[in-house]
Amino acid sequence: MECEYFDKIKDYGHLLAETKYWMILLAPDQRNLGTCVVALKREEPELSGLKIEEWSELFYVMKSLELAVKKAFCATMFNWGCLMNSSYLENPPNPHLHWHFIPRYRKPVEFHGKRFDDPCFGRSTMHNRGKPVKLPNDFKEKIKNSILEYLEL
Amino acid sequence: MECEYFDKIKDYGHLLAETKYWMILLAPDQRNLGTCVVALKREEPELSGLKIEEWSELFYVMKSLELAVKKAFCATMFNWGCLMNSSYLENPPNPHLHWHFIPRYRKPVEFHGKRFDDPCFGRSTMHNRGKPVKLPNDFKEKIKNSILEYLEL
Repeated sequence: MECEYFDKIKDYGHLLAETKYWMILLAPDQRNLGTCVVALKREEPELSGLKIEEWSELFYVMKSLELAVKKAFCATMFNWGCLMNSSYLENPPNPHLHWHFIPRYRKPVEFHGKRFDDPCFGRSTMHNRGKPVKLPNDFKEKIKNSILEYLEL
Repeated sequence: MECEYFDKIKDYGHLLAETKYWMILLAPDQRNLGTCVVALKREEPELSGLKIEEWSELFYVMKSLELAVKKAFCATMFNWGCLMNSSYLENPPNPHLHWHFIPRYRKPVEFHGKRFDDPCFGRSTMHNRGKPVKLPNDFKEKIKNSILEYLEL
């Protein structure tokens, strides 16, 4: 993988796990506990450019991640989005294919003494709901380890 | 397919095309020209509950729809989301698996004398950007026919 690729990926978060074609990264904003990015392990700007074997493996990754976060934090359900919008603020754009994975919680969840709310449960996460939740690295490690405890890839 | 299923689907829009496992519907809100919903043709609340053959066909549907809308309206890129949030405003929830397909446009596009802007291009479509664009049925038919002209399923 090229340097430019790694430059983009590092903004998505901290590596949690990887498969043959995909990386799971814990997102920097943990407003919704367990929020991750699933990024393709090669340069590809568009969903339509995926290879069939990458698409097949993505399904396996999605299912495994949903199950793990449900077990780890009792998430109610999950939002998935493939957007790449911000890449298009540059012209020419230079998007890198990735998915946003946002666990949603009907009730607040407490984890290592910190309470995580989902005040817009039942609505889009894009509604105005305050500032991103940035956590210290050791706390993010605890989140990662809790997911990894149940993640079977 | 059951009556309850059809009751849900009709809110998603007007049928544009279908495959073995999926229906493509033109969404009621056409703020972004060509916005569609891709809905599974059976009751299923979760992405994780998809069968592998449904997942494989979804890729084919996504690629075909992107290509058709690119050819029909010169869309710049596309947002895909699997959310089902509003179903969870009810308790117990009764979600039905579907995908939101939102074409994005760097420049305004004109279609049959009407101008379609995408003022939040490069940002989430969930930002506050005014009222939904509801069009008369005959205009929506024109949009459907333009997509169908290029849609190869």
